[in-house]
Amino acid sequence: MAQLTREADTGQGITDMKVLHRSNEKTIIRFDIGDKFPEALAEWCEKEKVESAAIVAGIGMLENIEIGRYNGREYEKQIVKPSSEILSLQGNVSMKEGKPFVHLHVSLADEEMYVMGGHLFSGTVSITIELVMLELPAKFVRIPEGGAFWRLDTPQE
Amino acid sequence: MAQLTREADTGQGITDMKVLHRSNEKTIIRFDIGDKFPEALAEWCEKEKVESAAIVAGIGMLENIEIGRYNGREYEKQIVKPSSEILSLQGNVSMKEGKPFVHLHVSLADEEMYVMGGHLFSGTVSITIELVMLELPAKFVRIPEGGAFWRLDTPQE
Amino acid sequence: MAQLTREADTGQGITDMKVLHRSNEKTIIRFDIGDKFPEALAEWCEKEKVESAAIVAGIGMLENIEIGRYNGREYEKQIVKPSSEILSLQGNVSMKEGKPFVHLHVSLADEEMYVMGGHLFSGTVSITIELVMLELPAKFVRIPEGGAFWRLDTPQE
Repeated sequence: MAQLTREADTGQGITDMKVLHRSNEKTIIRFDIGDKFPEALAEWCEKEKVESAAIVAGIGMLENIEIGRYNGREYEKQIVKPSSEILSLQGNVSMKEGKPFVHLHVSLADEEMYVMGGHLFSGTVSITIELVMLELPAKFVRIPEGGAFWRLDTPQE
Repeated sequence: MAQLTREADTGQGITDMKVLHRSNEKTIIRFDIGDKFPEALAEWCEKEKVESAAIVAGIGMLENIEIGRYNGREYEKQIVKPSSEILSLQGNVSMKEGKPFVHLHVSLADEEMYVMGGHLFSGTVSITIELVMLELPAKFVRIPEGGAFWRLDTPQE
Repeated sequence: MAQLTREADTGQGITDMKVLHRSNEKTIIRFDIGDKFPEALAEWCEKEKVESAAIVAGIGMLENIEIGRYNGREYEKQIVKPSSEILSLQGNVSMKEGKPFVHLHVSLADEEMYVMGGHLFSGTVSITIELVMLELPAKFVRIPEGGAFWRLDTPQE
């Protein structure tokens, strides 16, 4: 992958991501090799003041991935080190403690092409991610519910 | 999960679900612990006269899940009892025998975070589901085709 | 599946697919038994001059499926022969060497309902596919990056 180029698209140095399309509530973002994900997405949402969105697709590859499974009190976590195909990303963006929070579940193919997955905590883009987001004129917030669970909600009037 | 609260958002007692956003053909619904799924979604579609929709994302957790695999004549079914992370939901809403019918395929992570899935018949929400639906000005119907297969179609003129 | 009917919906003989809805950037297409997939989708995009789209959902069944995993230089490929439930499809359409190119990742349930998947090269529809696409007023192109990787991008000004 020696020829892979990196361009500072944002002009802020936080990530090499590039917004490929953004109109009519639909946003397509490409993340590039080395980007932290979904951290880079959360940073972009903060910069762009995106507070409420649905994430409806995302394919590419990640490595050094931390995924989790909620056991009713907390997340049991697991590390997937090898570069793995992302088969699906689904989730949303909401405001949690004053900042955009990215909630994503991921499906990943291992080297035999069998699939693992869970709540996505973090990973490093190992080739690309092609993400599809619906930016919504909504007000999504996270409300603590006990344990590690924060309910997706709208603000109390 | 003792602190989980239940609110009768619909005022009709069928479910604790809450519509978090609904505009410009995009609807975000949260289902809550104890809701039957996708039964609660079908009931909501009937109440709201939603006849045609695409379901493009849904994450959360289900338990006591019945999934199936079509063998060309009928569905071979399997029960997944433990509370499982929903990694993806995709499908649609159409009219079948006069009522809204929810067709969904689901991916579920087991306790080792390996993934099972199939056609989703039923389950009980064990923490939350955050669903993304596109309500379409379309006319989707289901036409029987033999076996257990009903083709997604538009009405004959 | 003897009763399954085939109709030449496109009038061009390339496929039995049927466009069930197409408005406001949202397109729902049904593919039918025997259709090559995603080849039939790429042909339809070429005929309809669809150059940029996000594919956000697709469920149904495929057989004789070729999937791949990118190892940093090339795709390692695997054939899945049995008819398998498609649990998710995500990806996009862009222009590559002058033609619409369909980039899709797929999750498939095997006969025990465990899930495999990867980059979707080809398959044959074994019952139906119900696809959800967002047709975007964008300009997506593929730029060669070395190895088998073509970066999703927008044209250089």
